[in-house]
Amino acid sequence: MMKTIQFPKKEDWGELLKRPTRTFKDIETTVDDIFKNIQQGGDQAVLKYTSMFDGVDLKSFEVSAEEIDQAQSQVSDPLKSAIQLAKSNIHKFHEAQKTEPVKVETQPGVTCWQAKKPIQKVGLYIPGGTAPLFSTILMLAVPAKIAGCSEIVLCTPPDKLGKINPVTLYTAQLCGIDKVFKVGGIQAIGAMTFGTETIPKVYKIFGPGNQYVTVAKQVATTFDVAIDMPAGPSELLVVADETANPEFVASDLLSQAEHGFDSQVVLVSTDEPMIDKVKVAIENQLKELPRKEMAAKAIENSKFVLVKDQSSALELIDFYGPEHFIISTKNDDYYVENINNAGSVFIGKYTPESAGDYASGTNHTLPTNGYAKQYSGVNLDSFNKAITYQKITEEGIRNIGEAVELMAEAEGLQAHKNAMTLRRNEVENK
Amino acid sequence: MMKTIQFPKKEDWGELLKRPTRTFKDIETTVDDIFKNIQQGGDQAVLKYTSMFDGVDLKSFEVSAEEIDQAQSQVSDPLKSAIQLAKSNIHKFHEAQKTEPVKVETQPGVTCWQAKKPIQKVGLYIPGGTAPLFSTILMLAVPAKIAGCSEIVLCTPPDKLGKINPVTLYTAQLCGIDKVFKVGGIQAIGAMTFGTETIPKVYKIFGPGNQYVTVAKQVATTFDVAIDMPAGPSELLVVADETANPEFVASDLLSQAEHGFDSQVVLVSTDEPMIDKVKVAIENQLKELPRKEMAAKAIENSKFVLVKDQSSALELIDFYGPEHFIISTKNDDYYVENINNAGSVFIGKYTPESAGDYASGTNHTLPTNGYAKQYSGVNLDSFNKAITYQKITEEGIRNIGEAVELMAEAEGLQAHKNAMTLRRNEVENK
Repeated sequence: MMKTIQFPKKEDWGELLKRPTRTFKDIETTVDDIFKNIQQGGDQAVLKYTSMFDGVDLKSFEVSAEEIDQAQSQVSDPLKSAIQLAKSNIHKFHEAQKTEPVKVETQPGVTCWQAKKPIQKVGLYIPGGTAPLFSTILMLAVPAKIAGCSEIVLCTPPDKLGKINPVTLYTAQLCGIDKVFKVGGIQAIGAMTFGTETIPKVYKIFGPGNQYVTVAKQVATTFDVAIDMPAGPSELLVVADETANPEFVASDLLSQAEHGFDSQVVLVSTDEPMIDKVKVAIENQLKELPRKEMAAKAIENSKFVLVKDQSSALELIDFYGPEHFIISTKNDDYYVENINNAGSVFIGKYTPESAGDYASGTNHTLPTNGYAKQYSGVNLDSFNKAITYQKITEEGIRNIGEAVELMAEAEGLQAHKNAMTLRRNEVENK
Repeated sequence: MMKTIQFPKKEDWGELLKRPTRTFKDIETTVDDIFKNIQQGGDQAVLKYTSMFDGVDLKSFEVSAEEIDQAQSQVSDPLKSAIQLAKSNIHKFHEAQKTEPVKVETQPGVTCWQAKKPIQKVGLYIPGGTAPLFSTILMLAVPAKIAGCSEIVLCTPPDKLGKINPVTLYTAQLCGIDKVFKVGGIQAIGAMTFGTETIPKVYKIFGPGNQYVTVAKQVATTFDVAIDMPAGPSELLVVADETANPEFVASDLLSQAEHGFDSQVVLVSTDEPMIDKVKVAIENQLKELPRKEMAAKAIENSKFVLVKDQSSALELIDFYGPEHFIISTKNDDYYVENINNAGSVFIGKYTPESAGDYASGTNHTLPTNGYAKQYSGVNLDSFNKAITYQKITEEGIRNIGEAVELMAEAEGLQAHKNAMTLRRNEVENK
């Protein structure tokens, strides 16, 4: 296991860095079926699926004020402080992403501008289970609030007792989300797509999930709902040279590996002894991990790639387009300045991925599966849309009127031309 | 025909403003089939489909230097000037959308930033036919160039003689696109999705098209390619009170109607006599239009809605979320300031939609089908993705290290915690 690939040829990169493909056709049928029933049956259908998949018969999805109060007392003070610190940093970084309207007079009398407006209704999906991803609430709710989304709905699955993890409830309340529903899986995505008597329909759905949630989100896009981005297994690529700390590198690779069997872990190095040292460190650290089976399996599928110099390293990394990209070399700036395809970049030995996963301020909802080539991670604009405006005066009509007529005519659109001709005539006859 | 709907109740808005639904399941099978053949057969498969669908046997897809030279001489000087003027305005408005990196020290020693990088490979699809939409080349190629996309591919179908319209070629050359291919329809989208011997694979596909192209773009998103936005029939909503010019309003409604049978045309007014005057003007102007059959059909399906005041009007318009929204009232600012859901807004009597379609500077690739609620029209950022970066110092580790550990532990992710613990230990032992 943990074989090093030495100086791979460019034509082999595709095969070498292939991501696991997942076929979803069978799940799609299930999703279609559940969606149809939710569209028709509303709350009752959602309750039925909650009983079926989560093993609990609920009377109501809504989290009560009492449950929220209880949650407050069940979360330790140090954890509350940690969550507040993380929230504050995430707020600072996303608040700074606000933009002023862009206004340009393109020609005298022709004023064009662009302004961002919040997506009014958004839905956040937070997976449940024994390790609830409350950090994802911060990553989604904080920018949604800054953008000014007026309706924020959160769905998360109940446990077998019909409860939500208290840290999840605490974090939701801290973020000012007052619509929390105990609904998970395909039925949660369906409920937010169509709306039910209790759960509002939203315009865009955010958040991670298992393969069922992933497919449900894909299907939701065929029903006038947008999603944050297509999802795939999480992945990390580290570039390290002889100056890196092999223990740190090993810990970063393992922190990715513990996410799941299909996590992608890649080490690229210009230094063969460093690769060997990292492998030894992985073996040692792995023994101590509670999720060691999962991590060991992911490490088995991981790639250790030796390249001849930093430019080969960069080219290979850009080809891969990692979700998380850690740089630990003597020349970090080279990679920072030249990388084109990555979700989030972690620079230097004191910047582990876990810092960005929780508390530094950057968002952890990032493009996987090579989507960093064309998608941004979640950011403030994920909760906005840009609207353009224009206002033309008589002078503006004089300046662009003829051009519009000529182009409309050349495209064979006579009514488009006529709309301008009528204005031109009035302006000329004044 | 052209019945006015008076003071519709809110519960009826959904039915009243329903857009035509299109089912694509049968087309999807065709697309799947063609995509599979292109993926396997490359250029030869594309040539086969070009022969089948465009009725021409090509030896090569590539546009020759000779053809480009010829095109130069076939476009009139006034049209060239018009296109150059439009390009200049579009350039000014999209250039102004550039943003500086956002950099924040969220806590001492924790620096986070966000920077935009161009999507390296983009594909532009331009429909062909007798009325080639060369204006769309400006709308897509100009921002792609400003963003810095390094590979821009343009596909457009050949006519029966194997030629591309000279205005299309002229505009492409003016925009600096050197990879123009004579490929249309599903096979063009497939070729840009998978790449062939001749046509490069791209990361994101832009541009309008008929229902085959629309479905092909949807299917492309399941193969790691992003698209500009989901498409639907074009639409226009005008709000006009007693101060509007009914001839102008009629001309705007008709310019939308001439796009196709399924174009959506809506007039909302607080003034019943104005609605009647607009109807008369439509009847008169319609007679003069070469595409009058198409326009008449779309006008038949159009809606004339009388509302009691501007706040009802606004609420109804926001509910609809029009692609194009023209405001011609005595209180335009009310709508400008309060509208939440629209693709592009045209303000005042001298601002016809056709100005924005061609030459004012705004983009004409806009969200239809109510997608204005959650999607932006094409803009500079459509050709970028945002990457985040972070760098943490020893001081930063001291400031956020414990919070990261506590949160990772609470989420049950021990290796995430360990990656931070190793750094904290080193920093503390210094």
